[in-house]
Amino acid sequence: MTGKNGQPSLTYADAGVNLEARAKFVERLGPIAKATHGPQVLSGVGPFGGMFKLGDYKEPVLVSSTDSVGTKVKIASLLGRFDTIGIDLVNQSVDDIITTGAEPLFFLDYIASSSLSLDEKESLVQGVADACKAAGCALIGGETADMPDVYAPGDLDFVGFVVGAVEQSAIIDGSAIKDGDALLALPSSGLHTNGYSLVRRVFSVGIDEDPATERARLEREEPELGSTLGEALLIPHRSYVAEVQAVREHLKGITHITGGGLVENVPRMLPSTSSGQAPATGSRRGPGLGARIDSTAWERPPLFSLIQREGNIAEEEMFRTFNMGIGLVVAVEPSDVDTVRAKLPEAIVVGEVAEVEGEERVVIS
Amino acid sequence: MTGKNGQPSLTYADAGVNLEARAKFVERLGPIAKATHGPQVLSGVGPFGGMFKLGDYKEPVLVSSTDSVGTKVKIASLLGRFDTIGIDLVNQSVDDIITTGAEPLFFLDYIASSSLSLDEKESLVQGVADACKAAGCALIGGETADMPDVYAPGDLDFVGFVVGAVEQSAIIDGSAIKDGDALLALPSSGLHTNGYSLVRRVFSVGIDEDPATERARLEREEPELGSTLGEALLIPHRSYVAEVQAVREHLKGITHITGGGLVENVPRMLPSTSSGQAPATGSRRGPGLGARIDSTAWERPPLFSLIQREGNIAEEEMFRTFNMGIGLVVAVEPSDVDTVRAKLPEAIVVGEVAEVEGEERVVIS
Repeated sequence: MTGKNGQPSLTYADAGVNLEARAKFVERLGPIAKATHGPQVLSGVGPFGGMFKLGDYKEPVLVSSTDSVGTKVKIASLLGRFDTIGIDLVNQSVDDIITTGAEPLFFLDYIASSSLSLDEKESLVQGVADACKAAGCALIGGETADMPDVYAPGDLDFVGFVVGAVEQSAIIDGSAIKDGDALLALPSSGLHTNGYSLVRRVFSVGIDEDPATERARLEREEPELGSTLGEALLIPHRSYVAEVQAVREHLKGITHITGGGLVENVPRMLPSTSSGQAPATGSRRGPGLGARIDSTAWERPPLFSLIQREGNIAEEEMFRTFNMGIGLVVAVEPSDVDTVRAKLPEAIVVGEVAEVEGEERVVIS
Repeated sequence: MTGKNGQPSLTYADAGVNLEARAKFVERLGPIAKATHGPQVLSGVGPFGGMFKLGDYKEPVLVSSTDSVGTKVKIASLLGRFDTIGIDLVNQSVDDIITTGAEPLFFLDYIASSSLSLDEKESLVQGVADACKAAGCALIGGETADMPDVYAPGDLDFVGFVVGAVEQSAIIDGSAIKDGDALLALPSSGLHTNGYSLVRRVFSVGIDEDPATERARLEREEPELGSTLGEALLIPHRSYVAEVQAVREHLKGITHITGGGLVENVPRMLPSTSSGQAPATGSRRGPGLGARIDSTAWERPPLFSLIQREGNIAEEEMFRTFNMGIGLVVAVEPSDVDTVRAKLPEAIVVGEVAEVEGEERVVIS
């Protein structure tokens, strides 16, 4: 192609944006996304937006959340394993919205990178689709951005967005939680998606040293883990959709143990004494409802002990940064504990709701 | 804080993640987001997800879209101007979903960077909130990720998600469009968010040369633009919410002129002859409905002429990469043209729907 004055002209492809490759990618994505579609997804219309027909609700409340998998992508990229972090992306967001009692409806993803191959991008999206299917939600849109001037080779960002719905009368908001309620915990599968910036420093991986050296560290067998370090660090975030669904009617509050660990996340489901509203993360107040947690109630997975030892990390810092083996905590009436545990045998009583004084609302002993 | 063995321990803050600064930022965001909230936003519940009560629809279809502002952030970052690209972020997504006839309901944003200050992040979110308010949608969530190992100083990614709703019976899907329908265009405000990778190469800005040199290029007055180059390149993406609302009942099809320009986007609203479904971008087919566009019908804004001249870019490439001054195209019955133009005086007839043969569905002359 030549420009106005007959000299070679600059094209969009010269600028690193290949619209043909992009069209090819979109073609490969079609069937992957389609496998997650039920009759509620209206296809063939709305090429600019995903379209989802809402089911029967009397007073539907839409619940949504967005997040990236953070620097867990650094580990995936170093190991060239792109098939699992799509699962992380979906489950971390889905586990956020189910804390309100919502069911997940649909999901969109955003991938930005400079050097990912078509196959690598397809792996990412396949992971998203697999987790969407498992969570009963439809993958109805997404965007893949090539930004060579923003992302270094091997780097990427991977962002997800989920929408769910709940009947207004069925919202779980923690307002009924009271002193003495039992706290039941469900195990996490690994680090989920939190604490990776610290972990990468502890093990000197994904910090832009020589990739071969970093990779060797990740591929070392760790006998106490029964796997390599890299395998343990890439275990995908668990979904708790089925578990919450199974015991929904007994749950007075649900919290997802994300950034800030048990210390920051358990208070998010508790009612504040003054206003009856759940407080924002990090808020400070006088005496009121808090939680006492017995850290001997569950077995700490060896990955956390390894991280703590290698990084020489204080116990308090561990509990503020990592999930420590707990992915979801629910509050139930003490009399409901047996019923819930009968349906969810892996649920463990880890503590109780209690009046606490002072700055810390969660007392871990 | 000391670790288990009494030596200084590694903390999450050492790893570049400052949870306190993060909590402070969340506190500053609160009032900004709240200013966009109407009674449909349920606050005080759902700390893990934004909650939005759907209004009265008989058969609601939810329409959603995600995108980033791409490398327009490079220009903003060079000039240290973070107050406008939030407007880009919202309007580009909102303009996507209104092509179906949907009204925007709510929005979430994701900011990832390494070195942005609290004030810079606040500017970004303020822009998002201002545009949300103007579009009548609520900012109900978001995430701000600090990833020093992924983003270089000054670099960032800025991603948005919008959800809207439309009555199923009122979806605008282009299926009624026929040969001879008029194509009306609404002007763009500038480049909107497309073609920045090419533009940055044309003017050698945001390509990681010396920032001072690049900045000087952006701050040069361009007499034909009546502004500096940087100012022209940062003009925010326009919203067409009010315009579409005003003439909605007359619109048989709506297309948003994004990546791929008129050439790729006009076909997205046209029915395909065989199946009655709108084809995906870049699809190829036999004779069928296309469009003839008269490029002399509107005045090309001087910014596009400057880019074309400086980059020595072929005319066809210009039309495939940039919006060329047109931000939205709608298809209407020829007999409705005057009615629509009476309500939208800036709308221009730029061509018509026509049977075309061959690979190109849009013929620009």
